[in-house]
Amino acid sequence: MAETTTIDATTVERRSFDDASVAAIFRRVAAEAPFVYGLTNYIAANLSANVLLSAGAGPAIGAGADWPRIFPAGAGGVWINTATVMSNDLETVATVARTAHRAGTPWVLDPVANGAGATEYDAFVRSLLDHRPTIIRGNASELIALAGGDALGKGVETTADSTDAISHITDLAARTGAVVAVSGRVDYITDGRRVVAVEGGDVRLTQVTGAGCSLGALNAAVAAVADDPFDAAVAAHAAYARAADKAAAVLGPRGGSGSFATALVDGLWELAN
Amino acid sequence: MAETTTIDATTVERRSFDDASVAAIFRRVAAEAPFVYGLTNYIAANLSANVLLSAGAGPAIGAGADWPRIFPAGAGGVWINTATVMSNDLETVATVARTAHRAGTPWVLDPVANGAGATEYDAFVRSLLDHRPTIIRGNASELIALAGGDALGKGVETTADSTDAISHITDLAARTGAVVAVSGRVDYITDGRRVVAVEGGDVRLTQVTGAGCSLGALNAAVAAVADDPFDAAVAAHAAYARAADKAAAVLGPRGGSGSFATALVDGLWELAN
Amino acid sequence: MAETTTIDATTVERRSFDDASVAAIFRRVAAEAPFVYGLTNYIAANLSANVLLSAGAGPAIGAGADWPRIFPAGAGGVWINTATVMSNDLETVATVARTAHRAGTPWVLDPVANGAGATEYDAFVRSLLDHRPTIIRGNASELIALAGGDALGKGVETTADSTDAISHITDLAARTGAVVAVSGRVDYITDGRRVVAVEGGDVRLTQVTGAGCSLGALNAAVAAVADDPFDAAVAAHAAYARAADKAAAVLGPRGGSGSFATALVDGLWELAN
Repeated sequence: MAETTTIDATTVERRSFDDASVAAIFRRVAAEAPFVYGLTNYIAANLSANVLLSAGAGPAIGAGADWPRIFPAGAGGVWINTATVMSNDLETVATVARTAHRAGTPWVLDPVANGAGATEYDAFVRSLLDHRPTIIRGNASELIALAGGDALGKGVETTADSTDAISHITDLAARTGAVVAVSGRVDYITDGRRVVAVEGGDVRLTQVTGAGCSLGALNAAVAAVADDPFDAAVAAHAAYARAADKAAAVLGPRGGSGSFATALVDGLWELAN
Repeated sequence: MAETTTIDATTVERRSFDDASVAAIFRRVAAEAPFVYGLTNYIAANLSANVLLSAGAGPAIGAGADWPRIFPAGAGGVWINTATVMSNDLETVATVARTAHRAGTPWVLDPVANGAGATEYDAFVRSLLDHRPTIIRGNASELIALAGGDALGKGVETTADSTDAISHITDLAARTGAVVAVSGRVDYITDGRRVVAVEGGDVRLTQVTGAGCSLGALNAAVAAVADDPFDAAVAAHAAYARAADKAAAVLGPRGGSGSFATALVDGLWELAN
Repeated sequence: MAETTTIDATTVERRSFDDASVAAIFRRVAAEAPFVYGLTNYIAANLSANVLLSAGAGPAIGAGADWPRIFPAGAGGVWINTATVMSNDLETVATVARTAHRAGTPWVLDPVANGAGATEYDAFVRSLLDHRPTIIRGNASELIALAGGDALGKGVETTADSTDAISHITDLAARTGAVVAVSGRVDYITDGRRVVAVEGGDVRLTQVTGAGCSLGALNAAVAAVADDPFDAAVAAHAAYARAADKAAAVLGPRGGSGSFATALVDGLWELAN
C-alpha cells in the first residue's frame, strides 16, 4: 500500500498556456524538431503521430528489427504506452524502456488500462518502473492503481476523478522520482513536492480515442527539448488543454466528436506555428 | 452446402431510426456507457473506437498479456473482426470468442474478407461459429461464403448485392442461432424467421475504410444494453444509416470521402447526444 | 558505393496533373477499381486505405493466416512499406514480395526510415530488392541510403533535399530495373534514363503522418491499371501533388495539419470522381 500524503489545497498552483514561460517551452518543440520515438497501441498510433507532427516534432512509432535497441538512444524523447503489448512481446517493451533509461533519454510511461482487472498486464506495467520513467501520465484509475491504491478502471476509462488521485500521484512521484501527471476535468502534475493544476479542456476530449495516449506522446516531445521534466509535463498539458479549448471554440457545443479530433490537432498546430 | 429458404418479399419489414423504439434502444448506449471489448484489424481500430465513443460506449481494443482472458468476461459486449489475425495468433482470437460465450457476454462476429480466396483464413473464420456468436455481420460476399454459398469477394469488397444474400443469411441464422445482418445498398437483418430491411446510407460509406468494421463494433455496443440481439442489430444498423444520411446532408453530393468519415462520426454523436 | 551519374538539368522534364495523359492514367483506377494489397505500418494503414478508396481502388492491408501467399497473386498491385516489420516477421514480408514478383503483380517498395541508424532493419530492406520491386519510392535520406550513398535520416524524416537524391535514384533505377521516385519539395521520378519532375504540394504534407506511406500505396493502385510503371509513378505523384494543392487552396495558409489530412483525401476523391 502507498503511504498517503496530505496535500494542502493552497500548495496547488494554477498554470496555463497564458504563462509566457509555459508557451515558450512548448514552442521549443517546433524550433528544435526533436526525433521522438514511441511504442503505443495501434488504435492511438495515428493520432499520436499527428499530434507530435502538429507540435513540430518528428515521430517514429513501433518496434521492428533492431529499432528497439537503436532508436531510444538516438531519440530526444521516448514514450511507452503499455497497451503496445497488443503488438509487442513484453521483453521488447522492456528493452525500449531500458535503452532509453541507460542512454539518458527522457521517457514517458503511459499505463493505459492499468487497474482494469488484468492482473498480469498490471504486473508488467509496474515492472517498467524499474527502468525509471521520467514522466508518468494517465487517468485517475490508472494512476491510483499504479500507486497501489484501490481503483478499478472500466477498460480504458477511469471511474475516479483526477482530484481523488492527487495524494496517490504525489506518493508515486516521491517514490519513483518521476514527474506524475493525471488527466481529468482538471489535470494535476507533481514531482512529489510541487503540485500544478491545469484547467481547460472539453468533455469531447474523452470521446476521441487516443486523445490521452497522444498527450503521453506530447509529453515526450516537450521533455526532449525542456531543461526540466516537470516544466515539460506542465507545458505539454497546458498546450493540450488550450488546443482543446480552441477546438471547442471553433466547433461550439454541438460540434461532434469526429470534428473535435481534427480540430484538436489543428489547435495544437496553431499553437506551434 | 446450405439449404435455401424462400423469403417472401412481403415478410420483409422496413425499420428506421424514425421508429421511436429503435432510437430508444440506440440511446441506451449513451445512458449506460457499457464497456465494449474488441479484436479488430489495425486499419479499422481507430474509427471503430471513435464510433463507439461517439455513441457513448467505452471501448477497449486489442489482445495483450491477459486481456483476452479477462476483458471478454467483464465487458458488456464483445466484437471480433477476423482480420485481427494480422495482429493475433488464431488461438488468442478463439480465446476471446470462447471467453465471451462462456461468460454470457453477447459477441459479434465480423468475418471481413471471408470468401476472398484465402482458404486457411476462411476455415478459421468458420471455426469461430463453434463459440456461438450472438450477431454475425458482414457484406454480401462474406456472408454468402460463410453460409456455404458460392461467392468470391475481391479482397474486402463484395461482388454481390445484399439482396442476393437474404436467403443465405436466413439459413445461416437458423443454423447458428445468431442474428445475421448483411450490409449493402439496403441492409437486411434476420434471426432466421423475421427479416428487417434498413434503408439509407450513402455510397461514400463504402469509400471510408473500416466503416463496415466499425458497424460491427457498434452492434456489440448496442447488444450490451439491449434486451434482445435482434433489436440491437436493427438499432445499430438504423443508427448507422441515419448517421450516414446526416453526413451526406451536411456535405452534399460533392463532399469527399475524407470529410465523410468525420461527418459520419459526428452524425452518430448527434444521434446519441 | 553507388556509381554516380551526371544528370543534365535540361534532361529533367516537368509533368503535372494538367497533362491529359497523366490525369487519364490516374482516372483508370476509378474506372477499373483494382484490388490492391499491401503490408504497411499501423500508423499509416488507415490513411493509406482511405487514399486508395478515394482514388477508386479496393485495398486490403495486413498479413494473417494465408493472406501473404494468396492475396499478392490475386491483386492488381501490391505495396510493401517496410515499417510493417512492426507487425510482421521478416519472412512474411519477404513472402509477399516474392509472391508478387513470381505472379507478375507490380509491387511498390517503400523503405521508410531506411538509413536512420538501424542497420539490421536496413539490411532487411535491402534484401527485398532481390524480389525485384516495380517501383521504389521514399524520401531523399531513405533512397540515398538504399542506393549506397551517405545519408542519415532522423527517424522517418529526411535530412536531405530531393534534388540531392537525383543521381542516387537514377543509379538505383538503372541497377535494379525499378522505377524510383523521391518525394520532396519537388518530386523526381526516374527509370534510370528519363527523369521527370513533379512540382506542387504543401509543407503540411510533411505534417500528416503516413502521407508519404499513402503515396506508396497509391503508386501500387496506379501501377495496377497503367501499361507502364514509369507512367504510373508519374501519375500517382502528380495526382498527389494536385490533391495537396487543392487542400491548401481550400484551407488557406492557416488551416492546420489536422484539417489538411482530411482535405488531402477529399482532394484525391475530387480528382477521381
